[in-house]
Amino acid sequence: MKIETCLSPALFHLYQKEIANYNVVIIDILRATTTICVAFYNGALEVLPCSSPEEAKAQEKNNFIAAAERNGETVEGFILGNSPQHFTPEKIAGKKIALTTTNGTRALQAAVGANEIIIGSFLNLERVCEFLFKNNKHVMLFCAGWKDKFNLEDTLYAGAVAEKLTQKGASIADDSSHAALDLWQTAKNNLQSYLQKANHVQRFQTLHIESDLTVCTQLNSTPILPIWKNNTLVSHYLSQSVNP
Amino acid sequence: MKIETCLSPALFHLYQKEIANYNVVIIDILRATTTICVAFYNGALEVLPCSSPEEAKAQEKNNFIAAAERNGETVEGFILGNSPQHFTPEKIAGKKIALTTTNGTRALQAAVGANEIIIGSFLNLERVCEFLFKNNKHVMLFCAGWKDKFNLEDTLYAGAVAEKLTQKGASIADDSSHAALDLWQTAKNNLQSYLQKANHVQRFQTLHIESDLTVCTQLNSTPILPIWKNNTLVSHYLSQSVNP
Repeated sequence: MKIETCLSPALFHLYQKEIANYNVVIIDILRATTTICVAFYNGALEVLPCSSPEEAKAQEKNNFIAAAERNGETVEGFILGNSPQHFTPEKIAGKKIALTTTNGTRALQAAVGANEIIIGSFLNLERVCEFLFKNNKHVMLFCAGWKDKFNLEDTLYAGAVAEKLTQKGASIADDSSHAALDLWQTAKNNLQSYLQKANHVQRFQTLHIESDLTVCTQLNSTPILPIWKNNTLVSHYLSQSVNP
Repeated sequence: MKIETCLSPALFHLYQKEIANYNVVIIDILRATTTICVAFYNGALEVLPCSSPEEAKAQEKNNFIAAAERNGETVEGFILGNSPQHFTPEKIAGKKIALTTTNGTRALQAAVGANEIIIGSFLNLERVCEFLFKNNKHVMLFCAGWKDKFNLEDTLYAGAVAEKLTQKGASIADDSSHAALDLWQTAKNNLQSYLQKANHVQRFQTLHIESDLTVCTQLNSTPILPIWKNNTLVSHYLSQSVNP
């Protein structure tokens, strides 16, 4: 099992040719993939990624709840944005959600064609690593970034996954995974504090949504695994028990 | 003075719009920008970056020495490739060189339009930082990468420049510069050993050119500054004395 890390959707074409041989982890820590984990943990039945707010809104006729974020803010006319704190059991248990976000949706759609596509966040780190290890294909850690730019939080998560998989014998195959792992070693004992310098966390401060950072860095708080099946995201129920 | 780092030529379009306000440092540590520094230190008059081996060869009629590398190896029919060890005073003092390489040439051509374009390597680190500080524009650290992929050695050098400039009051403006700086902190006390895991160093081992790594990591061994002027590279002579 080899591990590679794509640091931006603008670099994904470099990996696309071989993607059928890889399990891809979509990583958009602040906040799409974190929010998707929370949604399933709180009882959502399905999360349908949409390209635009209009596309999400149009799904309301099919009994979806529409959620839309652009530039870090809830789009006008939507009750749900991209904050994990919006996705409470009261609002979404037993519901289907149509979600569009600045970066995460795009990365997910680019990865279609991979062996399996799963959703990674610090909230389901162990579950992601367990799936990748048991499924035993090459691993592509796909950072959604911010408008195609590199970001720290997605890269650190790639490093966290690389750490766990290499501990079980997987090998790192590219320089970006080495960098992600070394950054994770620097940051992991003080993740929330380390991320204060991240551009997107500073954007959070401007938007007064700093509390989202606390939610987005809680390790293994939602032990579920969102997975791409039949052109939408559903929760994957492992048939085998978790080996921590 | 703000610092940004472009981790790959495939991401450079994200920065292009504002590039006239930046001094750009082209970084291709293994080996184009190192070799260019050695060439000027050993007496080359000019280094003309060419897009193809044919274009370099065609400059021989204009009294250039042609040098060409592809995939780490000297192109057949050329005496000079991309190894700094090829560029001895005996071969190149007083000569003009037409050079084409896998990654470095392309990055340089992409950056045309910047305020100034200079060539950075560990061999002229202090001189690069001195120039950037005195010239006092925003700084773009442009990693040439390997065929558009992220690489460790160029990123570490970006971190080394970021360290020196922030010590003098410059501010980091993007996550990739933070990452570069933190990786540099991890690697700097044992640079050559750290780089053993880099993909390109492993490529060196296959090609039996490991000794180039020693040359390419010698801090401040060629205190000159190659700079882009009139569509070619020349050596920049500082009018002011060096303040170490």
